[in-house]
Amino acid sequence: MNTFGTTFRLTSFGESHGKAVGGIIDGMIAGIPVDEAFIQNELDRRRPGRNSCVTSRTEADTVHILSGVFDGFTLGTPIGFFVENTNQHSADYDKTFRPSHADYTYYNKYGGNWDYRGGGRASARETLSRVVAGAFAKLALRELLPGLRISAYLSAVGQVSIPYSYDCYDLTHVDESPIFCPDKAFEAEFKKEIDSARQRKDTLGSVVTCVCSCPPRNLGEPIFDKAHAVLASAMMSVPGAKGFEYGMGFCGSKMNGSEVLDEFGCDNDGHISVMSNHSGGIQGGITNGSDIYFNVAFKPIATIPGRQCRMVDVSSGHPEEKLKSAMGRHDVCIGIRAVPVIEAMAAMVLLDLYKQFNSNLTIRRK
Amino acid sequence: MNTFGTTFRLTSFGESHGKAVGGIIDGMIAGIPVDEAFIQNELDRRRPGRNSCVTSRTEADTVHILSGVFDGFTLGTPIGFFVENTNQHSADYDKTFRPSHADYTYYNKYGGNWDYRGGGRASARETLSRVVAGAFAKLALRELLPGLRISAYLSAVGQVSIPYSYDCYDLTHVDESPIFCPDKAFEAEFKKEIDSARQRKDTLGSVVTCVCSCPPRNLGEPIFDKAHAVLASAMMSVPGAKGFEYGMGFCGSKMNGSEVLDEFGCDNDGHISVMSNHSGGIQGGITNGSDIYFNVAFKPIATIPGRQCRMVDVSSGHPEEKLKSAMGRHDVCIGIRAVPVIEAMAAMVLLDLYKQFNSNLTIRRK
Amino acid sequence: MNTFGTTFRLTSFGESHGKAVGGIIDGMIAGIPVDEAFIQNELDRRRPGRNSCVTSRTEADTVHILSGVFDGFTLGTPIGFFVENTNQHSADYDKTFRPSHADYTYYNKYGGNWDYRGGGRASARETLSRVVAGAFAKLALRELLPGLRISAYLSAVGQVSIPYSYDCYDLTHVDESPIFCPDKAFEAEFKKEIDSARQRKDTLGSVVTCVCSCPPRNLGEPIFDKAHAVLASAMMSVPGAKGFEYGMGFCGSKMNGSEVLDEFGCDNDGHISVMSNHSGGIQGGITNGSDIYFNVAFKPIATIPGRQCRMVDVSSGHPEEKLKSAMGRHDVCIGIRAVPVIEAMAAMVLLDLYKQFNSNLTIRRK
Amino acid sequence: MNTFGTTFRLTSFGESHGKAVGGIIDGMIAGIPVDEAFIQNELDRRRPGRNSCVTSRTEADTVHILSGVFDGFTLGTPIGFFVENTNQHSADYDKTFRPSHADYTYYNKYGGNWDYRGGGRASARETLSRVVAGAFAKLALRELLPGLRISAYLSAVGQVSIPYSYDCYDLTHVDESPIFCPDKAFEAEFKKEIDSARQRKDTLGSVVTCVCSCPPRNLGEPIFDKAHAVLASAMMSVPGAKGFEYGMGFCGSKMNGSEVLDEFGCDNDGHISVMSNHSGGIQGGITNGSDIYFNVAFKPIATIPGRQCRMVDVSSGHPEEKLKSAMGRHDVCIGIRAVPVIEAMAAMVLLDLYKQFNSNLTIRRK
Repeated sequence: MNTFGTTFRLTSFGESHGKAVGGIIDGMIAGIPVDEAFIQNELDRRRPGRNSCVTSRTEADTVHILSGVFDGFTLGTPIGFFVENTNQHSADYDKTFRPSHADYTYYNKYGGNWDYRGGGRASARETLSRVVAGAFAKLALRELLPGLRISAYLSAVGQVSIPYSYDCYDLTHVDESPIFCPDKAFEAEFKKEIDSARQRKDTLGSVVTCVCSCPPRNLGEPIFDKAHAVLASAMMSVPGAKGFEYGMGFCGSKMNGSEVLDEFGCDNDGHISVMSNHSGGIQGGITNGSDIYFNVAFKPIATIPGRQCRMVDVSSGHPEEKLKSAMGRHDVCIGIRAVPVIEAMAAMVLLDLYKQFNSNLTIRRK
Repeated sequence: MNTFGTTFRLTSFGESHGKAVGGIIDGMIAGIPVDEAFIQNELDRRRPGRNSCVTSRTEADTVHILSGVFDGFTLGTPIGFFVENTNQHSADYDKTFRPSHADYTYYNKYGGNWDYRGGGRASARETLSRVVAGAFAKLALRELLPGLRISAYLSAVGQVSIPYSYDCYDLTHVDESPIFCPDKAFEAEFKKEIDSARQRKDTLGSVVTCVCSCPPRNLGEPIFDKAHAVLASAMMSVPGAKGFEYGMGFCGSKMNGSEVLDEFGCDNDGHISVMSNHSGGIQGGITNGSDIYFNVAFKPIATIPGRQCRMVDVSSGHPEEKLKSAMGRHDVCIGIRAVPVIEAMAAMVLLDLYKQFNSNLTIRRK
Repeated sequence: MNTFGTTFRLTSFGESHGKAVGGIIDGMIAGIPVDEAFIQNELDRRRPGRNSCVTSRTEADTVHILSGVFDGFTLGTPIGFFVENTNQHSADYDKTFRPSHADYTYYNKYGGNWDYRGGGRASARETLSRVVAGAFAKLALRELLPGLRISAYLSAVGQVSIPYSYDCYDLTHVDESPIFCPDKAFEAEFKKEIDSARQRKDTLGSVVTCVCSCPPRNLGEPIFDKAHAVLASAMMSVPGAKGFEYGMGFCGSKMNGSEVLDEFGCDNDGHISVMSNHSGGIQGGITNGSDIYFNVAFKPIATIPGRQCRMVDVSSGHPEEKLKSAMGRHDVCIGIRAVPVIEAMAAMVLLDLYKQFNSNLTIRRK
Repeated sequence: MNTFGTTFRLTSFGESHGKAVGGIIDGMIAGIPVDEAFIQNELDRRRPGRNSCVTSRTEADTVHILSGVFDGFTLGTPIGFFVENTNQHSADYDKTFRPSHADYTYYNKYGGNWDYRGGGRASARETLSRVVAGAFAKLALRELLPGLRISAYLSAVGQVSIPYSYDCYDLTHVDESPIFCPDKAFEAEFKKEIDSARQRKDTLGSVVTCVCSCPPRNLGEPIFDKAHAVLASAMMSVPGAKGFEYGMGFCGSKMNGSEVLDEFGCDNDGHISVMSNHSGGIQGGITNGSDIYFNVAFKPIATIPGRQCRMVDVSSGHPEEKLKSAMGRHDVCIGIRAVPVIEAMAAMVLLDLYKQFNSNLTIRRK
């Protein structure tokens, strides 16, 4: 269904070329000051047209909040919101199954009831709702957990990958980069890759890294709803995601246990610390207070303007194979605009898990 | 919580050194013949002591079915079951936070209420319940979708990785390998790696590949509950999993769109086909009928018998740092015994999504 | 939370004096023609100001549909909608806990974050969203189950109660009565009661009866999610509901088993029939194909214009007891406007259960 | 499905004549001392054969706890348990649809896969699991909310009904009555009614009243998951329940608003009180701290030993109408044994809502 989360939830709606996209945020903390400029800024971070590296569809993407806020503070009641669609080029689309897109699967699943314009419900425009809900989650976390910081950045584009760990960077400055890259040298390299792909009419895969520093302990449930299983599901739901790894990730599968075990230390005051963090801040599915960090792999999208390939056209009522070139406006590297979306999903997950933990009410064992 | 699934559900219970592990399967298809030998064989596949590569804890692991079956057929009512714990060595454990294990996080989360023996609830013994539920799911899928086949295999151990695609192998024979490796040459190499690690008192990471061939179309929901997001969550919940990728996965992040797009073809009879399968059988979160394939990365486990490292001991009531060597019996490479667990999780996910799809009731558009 | 339903869901938002009330309908059947006049008519049935018996707050209550509909048909994707609030008299309200209203409990629960204007989120205006979702459910049921008919009516007002069973009436004409009463004589009596209460500045309790005729068999789950338990929860969630009974209901508690058992008959063709229907169409929690019928008791609302009573005023920041008379516009008998809401809830429940049943996939036992 | 609850959950299994009934309790508070004698006593309260008024099926009904408890305290992990079935008389049953029972609906729903012995899954024996889970909930509530007390009693049998309010009785003594009646005179009358019905080979309906005194404030969610909607669903799921009402209930539908409004008072210290409690402790779906009280109507069960009526027999493979008299052992008045079940459901609901409230984390408005 179209609902994400358990105690903090986003239910979203909207087709790319319909009237609006939007959603309802349920389970918002009551009494949070609503910083509308912050919310709009989060939307602006994901907006197309922000720089030459992303698609040229430009819309104001102003959010309209219909409920749940009174007198500048959240009520704890559901927040209904929408963002109008204003810059659609519907004529660019017809009833064609584009390669590696969701046209064919939606067509089948919904018995031919399908809004083929701009990807319809499968458009990345759907992520607007995630960013709005993520912004509210961030506002709540700011009050509840002032030390927590959630930062994502572009860590690989095509064959070029930042080899350094996230803790080499001050991630509070990542927004200064138009492509959310914390390393000046790699920013330049990434841009070069993207420009080169654009020129040869191609697209590029990428990796986004996300870090939640100073998270609370005790988040996540032991068996099925492990913190990293919830994060994996959240991140894999972002359009274009093909892989998820946390802590040592796939690298860990190539290693010896003796290289990667995280020892526990204890000082004279009984303060326990984890001496390293190959675990990625999560042990047995539960956060241990160390930084949570993970990577999300994004595919190179399959809509390559001006490049012909075989598609199936059902405009006539029966399917016909055609050699066509896709139209519409698309990013060369979707990882850039995924950065604020990944952060939004992480914020929603952490707030949700934190709320769940607070229903725990353990009687402490003496 | 301890429930997995939506319309086909496993709720599990059990600590490693308690009386039993078990669960309740809810949403089972009614009228399925219950092949008890098949169920027991699935359990035997994950049993420790099956060969020299895995832990020596040996138990019969016989499943007791208490309900939901009558006259040899399923009733559609919940199936309660348990497997007794009989071979515990509780004396091997004390109140110590072992490196990279769940002792510390459970201790914190549950306010010191913690069964420290054998990992307690966090023991991989919990996966027995998954295998039983997966066996029932496989029995149901066998009737509902006779063409579907779910096969997992060990595809990498440490630095050694099978470079060939899954479709180079006849996976119906994978059980002939004691380590679930479909390639004789790599089986030998993997064993060599494992023996070497055991001799130098170390453990190894690994990768398990899983293939669902001839799956039904239309499984998965568009936005948040994408088929691959559900699979990711399921697989990441398996003990020791650090990464998940499907289709082109992390490799895709290094590629150009032109290399990996899956074109659609159509023959004269209007039969549509997907010409390649970089998508991994899922487009826009919905299965397209092509094979679903994915990898799960497993870490090298941190319990290395006879190797000393820093732990924190809370036996005295206050935490003390100690140099200890962990005891207990453990696998050198957990990926082997993860194979039947990964299959079980995949079977549960596919049956669940298939049941969900059948509530769709679309009115076909003319 | 603010979501109702399992496979057909309404998530709602909105405060009485905020910008709008609305919601998202998820799980809608794809391919249903969207009869907008029908939807608007359903809203008009619950609108205040429809006749002299109900509150005078008059708003056009036009629904804006933002997604999920394309080309006149449903897409199967979520339907976002809202209805603007335009006729608020916010000045009628201040920070006062009115007797038997939700002011005090909301104030406590949300830590003083509370929209005190017109009941805020607790206003019956919230039921607009239920009626819109119910209208979509009715449109779907019309296609899927053409024989099914859902009709509610006012069956008691204060001390006056229709003593005849629902099957004495042709309920297709109930809308001809401005107070949804199927019996001309009782309509007159009910009106007299209401006028009399209005004149003596009082309000009246009432009972609404609902009948689902020709329902499908097999709806409902055996143990906890019995069809009548789901209906009970749905109906008790309607503002002002104090009681629910189905079939023989509370009367049954006064009877002998020999008087009320529903025998089964079988004709020569093997067609089974239930010979009577004290069960109310549900046995063991599952529908048997007989009519489902139930009653919902509504309290007399506590806002009695012009009547002074003790309230607590927190305008000054600390609570003060005051003798005040409530303002605002209110119904004398809320049962009237509850009729379309009860029908909407019933339609949502039946569609949801019907969709759930279709995921059952039973293998028929020979 | 077979799961009840949100943050405190019971998943149950078991057929009447299968090996066992049982369940898994999930979300239990960690650190609660497990008073096994108390749990067994709760089971004994519902046990048949306790006195001459109830069915003669006598079983020890000893609960086996398999997990979730260590060293006498709860771990916070799931508690698996079962109770063996030992006193079945399967020969009393054949493939017959008994009047007003669940045989016919189960037969249809599960495609003929049906355990016809003793009602199978639909047997009231299923309530054993509810009582075990309720006992754990009570143990947790005892620690968390020492002032809270949950007491149910038999308040009507057939035409005889206690006319006094619950607050006329000291409900701590209700267990002294073998039929859970707090009033000596009515106890005698109820017994007379039951004896008379037994002698004339009939059964009787009844009403159970339940009171939760000194409950916490703030439980329940505003719109759909109102505290009384959750209670209604819980109580209507108990076998044989036909009606639910809380506070003024159905009586309220006959009254004027001026008679039943609950004024708010406030003393000089700013302490707010509700001056009366027609609301039944719940306003706008949220508890206000006053006693929660409600009634549940039970039907007279339809199995009347020795009385012939029309049933449909499908033993031969095709349905045949037969005049038969039902066998098996049954209560004359199921309300008696429902008393501990109603209490168990109330305890589970209150603990669940209390846990949910604790995830609320409101920022208090100054």
